[in-house]
Amino acid sequence: MEAALLAWLKKSLPQGGQFLVGLGDDAAVLQWQERSNCVVTSDLLADGTHFQLGQHTLAQIGRKLAAVNLSDLAAMAAEPLGLVVSLLLPDTMTLAQVQDIYAGMLPLCEEFDFRIAGGDTNVWSGNLVVSATAFGACPRSPLTRNGAELNDLLLVTGSLGGSLAGQHLDFTPRVREALLLNERYKIHAAMDISDGLALDAARLGEASGLGVVIDLPSVPISTAAHEITAADADGRSALERALADGEDFELLIAVPADEAGRLLSDQPLDIPLTQIGCFVREPGLWQSSQAGDQTPLPRTGYQHGSQAEASEA
Amino acid sequence: MEAALLAWLKKSLPQGGQFLVGLGDDAAVLQWQERSNCVVTSDLLADGTHFQLGQHTLAQIGRKLAAVNLSDLAAMAAEPLGLVVSLLLPDTMTLAQVQDIYAGMLPLCEEFDFRIAGGDTNVWSGNLVVSATAFGACPRSPLTRNGAELNDLLLVTGSLGGSLAGQHLDFTPRVREALLLNERYKIHAAMDISDGLALDAARLGEASGLGVVIDLPSVPISTAAHEITAADADGRSALERALADGEDFELLIAVPADEAGRLLSDQPLDIPLTQIGCFVREPGLWQSSQAGDQTPLPRTGYQHGSQAEASEA
Repeated sequence: MEAALLAWLKKSLPQGGQFLVGLGDDAAVLQWQERSNCVVTSDLLADGTHFQLGQHTLAQIGRKLAAVNLSDLAAMAAEPLGLVVSLLLPDTMTLAQVQDIYAGMLPLCEEFDFRIAGGDTNVWSGNLVVSATAFGACPRSPLTRNGAELNDLLLVTGSLGGSLAGQHLDFTPRVREALLLNERYKIHAAMDISDGLALDAARLGEASGLGVVIDLPSVPISTAAHEITAADADGRSALERALADGEDFELLIAVPADEAGRLLSDQPLDIPLTQIGCFVREPGLWQSSQAGDQTPLPRTGYQHGSQAEASEA
Repeated sequence: MEAALLAWLKKSLPQGGQFLVGLGDDAAVLQWQERSNCVVTSDLLADGTHFQLGQHTLAQIGRKLAAVNLSDLAAMAAEPLGLVVSLLLPDTMTLAQVQDIYAGMLPLCEEFDFRIAGGDTNVWSGNLVVSATAFGACPRSPLTRNGAELNDLLLVTGSLGGSLAGQHLDFTPRVREALLLNERYKIHAAMDISDGLALDAARLGEASGLGVVIDLPSVPISTAAHEITAADADGRSALERALADGEDFELLIAVPADEAGRLLSDQPLDIPLTQIGCFVREPGLWQSSQAGDQTPLPRTGYQHGSQAEASEA
């Protein structure tokens, strides 16, 4: 199947760009610009763990594979350049089905102007596993997790919670937003929310050697989280969903207070930017109480196929 | 487990080098040199298909994961810079076992001076799957598969066949050899032999729009292939093993005839370089006969988990 798939990919995928060598050689070759930074990230998705083949289409799975990797590039404020795809296919899968996986990635290739530069295709008797490595270039200094400073404010793009209702499959990685923010504003640190606001905000604080206080009434809650809460009987509030559901793939950023004021008043993105907390000296995750002091906030969140860190904290 | 693994990796793996951002952020960041080429390749190995957990140690599996990716970089004459590792772990696996996988990669990190720059760790109820993407830089023009010219000679490093006896687990990727050859000699095309000499030589010809004639008596046969043949009763000769076994991870190169003469007389590598054939106008894979003409040679070879292309040809 590999030879037939390669022939189809060469015909169907955009070629060229900065790639001197693309599909079909031992490796892809990209001509690099002077002195720029190369950003590399990898994500793997497995049937039964990250998606369910019966519930999700192959195109949705392909799209998600590309999108989660793009979201990691966004978290660094990198422009996507290419994606290398490794597939482990059930031996019952047809060429047309494999093409569906790639077809799901193509609209993102076009929207974000990157190339699928190669990969590795394997067949086995187990479940479908798809893995991709994305690489990009930073036009400016990359945004890392460890740059937040004491008294920085914590801002988030978009709204959170209820991603499982559909958002986790069709979200738009915040690539354009991250590039714009990093170009026009002074951003100290950033990450994308994949495992839930509470868990990821705690990680952002830890990476910077600080604690994080979240102002719960400020957290922007998605319509989906409200709808699921109204329809569901598990007793979790929409806010709890926004804190813990994960797979929002929104950006969490640390911004100095004066810059945050300018950013919140400019609202330079097509999606809302909301201040939801701040960085403090005491390590840990906190909520601000009405009395003005801080009480601990559980590090709720989601980790695929393993225990949430909540249990470790 | 991911947090504990990350802490161990940060302590155990070499950091820094050209990496501005390494383990633990959303992505790795590498400071790129001026105008150099970035080479990217990916390989995935699955339990039951590419290795057998009962037969092979986790350190052997980790070593092989790094080595097969390095071999692809060698095929392009690229210097290894970094490796991004994605793991899909059986839910019974312990942290110590995961550390064994990485421990298998460490000697190669040191030998070839590259960094493990990050990755993705997942847990599921299925078999172990390990995947890695390697990236490197080309000090000169990368060696590709499509540059062979009519009447170029076909040369191979080392000796072939019988890799399953052990070589496939402890082979040395031909990184140093490829860099030296590309620096000092005029090499038209190259690839590494992963699926067997016959199949891969045919691919090298096809990529360059040419046929390949192999002079069978010239093929360097490994001691392992001779030993397996002596001990085994399946009737395959040592030469058949050298043609079809695969996983030799030696270099196959196309060199203009006069340059090949110089190269064969210099023998600049620590391992033998042997002329085993040439590129011809007629597409296909051929063997030279004693009468001086060409007869077809079957494209025998090995593809993991799918039919060998021999059946397609």
